Amino acid sequence: MSDLIETLRAIVGASHCLVAADDTAPYLTDWRGRYTGAAQAVILPADTAEVAAVVGACAVAGCAVVPQGGNTGLCGGATPLADGAAVVVNLSRLRRVRRVDADNNAITVEAGVTLAAVQAAAAEVDRLFPLSLASEGSCEVGGFVSTNAGGVQVLRYGNSRELVLGLEVVLPDGRVWDGLRALRKDNTGYDLKQLFIGAEGTLGVVTAATLKLFPRPRDTVTAWLALTDPAAAVSLLGRLRAGVGDRVTAFELVSRPSLDLVLQHIPGTRDPLAAVHPWYALVELSDTRVGSGLDELLESELAHAIADGALPDAIVATSQTQANALWNLRENISEAQKREGVSIKHDISVPVSAIPAFLGRAGERLAAAYPGVRIVCFGHLGDGNLHYNLSRPQHDENDAFIGRSDDVNRIVYELVHASGGSISAEHGIGQLKRDILPLYKPALELELMRRVKRAFDPAGLMNPGKVLDAQGDAG
Amino acid sequence: MSDLIETLRAIVGASHCLVAADDTAPYLTDWRGRYTGAAQAVILPADTAEVAAVVGACAVAGCAVVPQGGNTGLCGGATPLADGAAVVVNLSRLRRVRRVDADNNAITVEAGVTLAAVQAAAAEVDRLFPLSLASEGSCEVGGFVSTNAGGVQVLRYGNSRELVLGLEVVLPDGRVWDGLRALRKDNTGYDLKQLFIGAEGTLGVVTAATLKLFPRPRDTVTAWLALTDPAAAVSLLGRLRAGVGDRVTAFELVSRPSLDLVLQHIPGTRDPLAAVHPWYALVELSDTRVGSGLDELLESELAHAIADGALPDAIVATSQTQANALWNLRENISEAQKREGVSIKHDISVPVSAIPAFLGRAGERLAAAYPGVRIVCFGHLGDGNLHYNLSRPQHDENDAFIGRSDDVNRIVYELVHASGGSISAEHGIGQLKRDILPLYKPALELELMRRVKRAFDPAGLMNPGKVLDAQGDAG
Repeated sequence: MSDLIETLRAIVGASHCLVAADDTAPYLTDWRGRYTGAAQAVILPADTAEVAAVVGACAVAGCAVVPQGGNTGLCGGATPLADGAAVVVNLSRLRRVRRVDADNNAITVEAGVTLAAVQAAAAEVDRLFPLSLASEGSCEVGGFVSTNAGGVQVLRYGNSRELVLGLEVVLPDGRVWDGLRALRKDNTGYDLKQLFIGAEGTLGVVTAATLKLFPRPRDTVTAWLALTDPAAAVSLLGRLRAGVGDRVTAFELVSRPSLDLVLQHIPGTRDPLAAVHPWYALVELSDTRVGSGLDELLESELAHAIADGALPDAIVATSQTQANALWNLRENISEAQKREGVSIKHDISVPVSAIPAFLGRAGERLAAAYPGVRIVCFGHLGDGNLHYNLSRPQHDENDAFIGRSDDVNRIVYELVHASGGSISAEHGIGQLKRDILPLYKPALELELMRRVKRAFDPAGLMNPGKVLDAQGDAG
Repeated sequence: MSDLIETLRAIVGASHCLVAADDTAPYLTDWRGRYTGAAQAVILPADTAEVAAVVGACAVAGCAVVPQGGNTGLCGGATPLADGAAVVVNLSRLRRVRRVDADNNAITVEAGVTLAAVQAAAAEVDRLFPLSLASEGSCEVGGFVSTNAGGVQVLRYGNSRELVLGLEVVLPDGRVWDGLRALRKDNTGYDLKQLFIGAEGTLGVVTAATLKLFPRPRDTVTAWLALTDPAAAVSLLGRLRAGVGDRVTAFELVSRPSLDLVLQHIPGTRDPLAAVHPWYALVELSDTRVGSGLDELLESELAHAIADGALPDAIVATSQTQANALWNLRENISEAQKREGVSIKHDISVPVSAIPAFLGRAGERLAAAYPGVRIVCFGHLGDGNLHYNLSRPQHDENDAFIGRSDDVNRIVYELVHASGGSISAEHGIGQLKRDILPLYKPALELELMRRVKRAFDPAGLMNPGKVLDAQGDAG
């Protein structure tokens, strides 16, 4: 192994080959502080050629590689295992914006470019890169591609997968696959990039991506709606889309308990409406044309809904400040939860039409099993993706409740599965959900995944123990 | 083999197991009449279970399978090879619309449902299925998924790939993978459906798909624009998108020679403008809101462009009849070419920004090599996808020219490749482009494709000789 470290040091230079505990520590733990692993070294290559040389050297030495970007993932996918057998390869130094082609609506960026930097580069040529996440100041291209990150704009623009035109990938043997095309139509064989997208670094190391750009929105309007129940939310979304079509760029569901936590823990927040309502929706419309009358359009749609009895109350933001304040309520739910204490978290999706029944049944089952449980439910209703987080309001009771995570998860995930849903809508599998994945995925599908894994990484050295178990072919 | 035919007959019934030459003939040749093959039998299963049993029986017997849908493909991908070793499995009897979920904007259909039927089922619930092809009355779900078909609406809605939420696939060993999910967010492992999409039936048989639905356009406006050159077209598209954003749903380039052929061969067609121009664009805007003022919007944009000298002339359709007449000009170019005679055809794409330079250089090189060559160029400018078809106006010279196809293709494809483009934007590889694919695709990429092929179809029985050569691992 020390021979390998010497080789790696020679490739990237001593200052980018970290072995001392103080130097490696930040790279060995995940953002949530849930996983801490160990590694032979943490390597920070400068460019694709160095990544290829590093991965190649590790392959020859039979040493596992853990690709890492901004380290903002939520499933421990970029944290090395405790066995310390692997080398962490951090891509953050691959920071070049290689090419911006406004006419072709495409941008080619290296894996270490942050999402915020991609957005800024797009804005400079009067374009939009629509992916938008809480972690955008830190998360990097390689990471959001490898996790197929979603966010609030999926309703209108799709996930990361829909935003990728091409990839450059270092394969497990160190060879570089240059699949960086900027074409919207190309039917010349299997679409290999699709395997690396969302593979969480288990099939190869993404070193660059060509991404789609879009016309910039010129007009945006934000509103906060009061709702009686989730069924009303689904129905209202349908009404809105029938009325204004694809101008709806976000439709976020927020439960009253979620809002309560924000009002309680986040300074400067106020309830936008006078009365208390059980559910809310944060809605955003946008248009790529200036002066499109979006405000009047939304107010008209909402007025009709109120007149029909489909909407108890609503407020449309009349300034950017007010719009920001509304988004602030939604965006701070996670922080508010963090300050409140620990909760058992779920990032699930079901078909939109199944949301009301799912929430109804899940609520009943959990209340029966754990009377007094608090359900903090919020999320991207338009995609069917909800964050569904559970805890006990009394802190002295919460510890015991958190200890029942496996039982609680079983209740929630069985209902999700029965609704045709997904146990991980956005965050991926990583280490966190690896061992329960077989409970909710057909055995045949896992078999096909293992075949793909073996075809690309026969030695099983690429991010072992993530998504699939470390053997890769058990079960 | 006769044992196998007996087994297949028992599975699907005698009337759906065709062996007589008169019965099988229509299934053994492609739509363009370019390929005629032979087969042990043509089997028409009724449902997924029968498809699975048929494929399983063929696998046990070591007999190749050629999946076939509406047989409208343009590369011979659904036509069996001349060796007659395979069984053709035609999916056209799998005609059920299994589920329509308007709230979830999803429809689940079997592989034999025609594209036109999918569009109609969507319209019945006030939704749009946006894929639109000339062959939509005949092409089927399994086919357009397996070829990742494009069409004129890709600019706004994407290819078939972007429209698929889930698939049901019969694997080469006869097992059924049920990947029919209706979720827009699902990050639970590798996105396996992406391999089958565009695989042209070489990895498995698609038996059903869950497809996305969209809000219906309520307002559409169509215009015919005169242009000086392709650079002006690219520039004008940019202007339009800056002005009206994603309301642009089609932007089709048409060269004067293309229009001339239509006016000459298609009865009832007229030049929409008074003067002759070297290039034209057919533009469509649409909006999902009624009364969105689309007409005035487009007229205003075009008036500004004319005032700026960026647009010599334009006409906006003021009735559906007039809009249809304009689309008719574009949609009949292929038919007009057929009546004119044979041409060497290319379905290529380059980055949009590279179109003017590509057309300039290709025109020069071809004119130098074949003085007097006629170039009929038209297509989806917004996606960078052009149909680029060459012939000699004098019929007695054209035969010799057609005989030079390989040389002509080399000129065109080398320039496409040098521009970062694709030698098959929409139509796929099939048999037609299989042997030249290695010239224009990195060897490493072909190697990865072969690994995928071997992982899913180790016996090489699924549509052999399509996309990759029949060995599957030569080269």
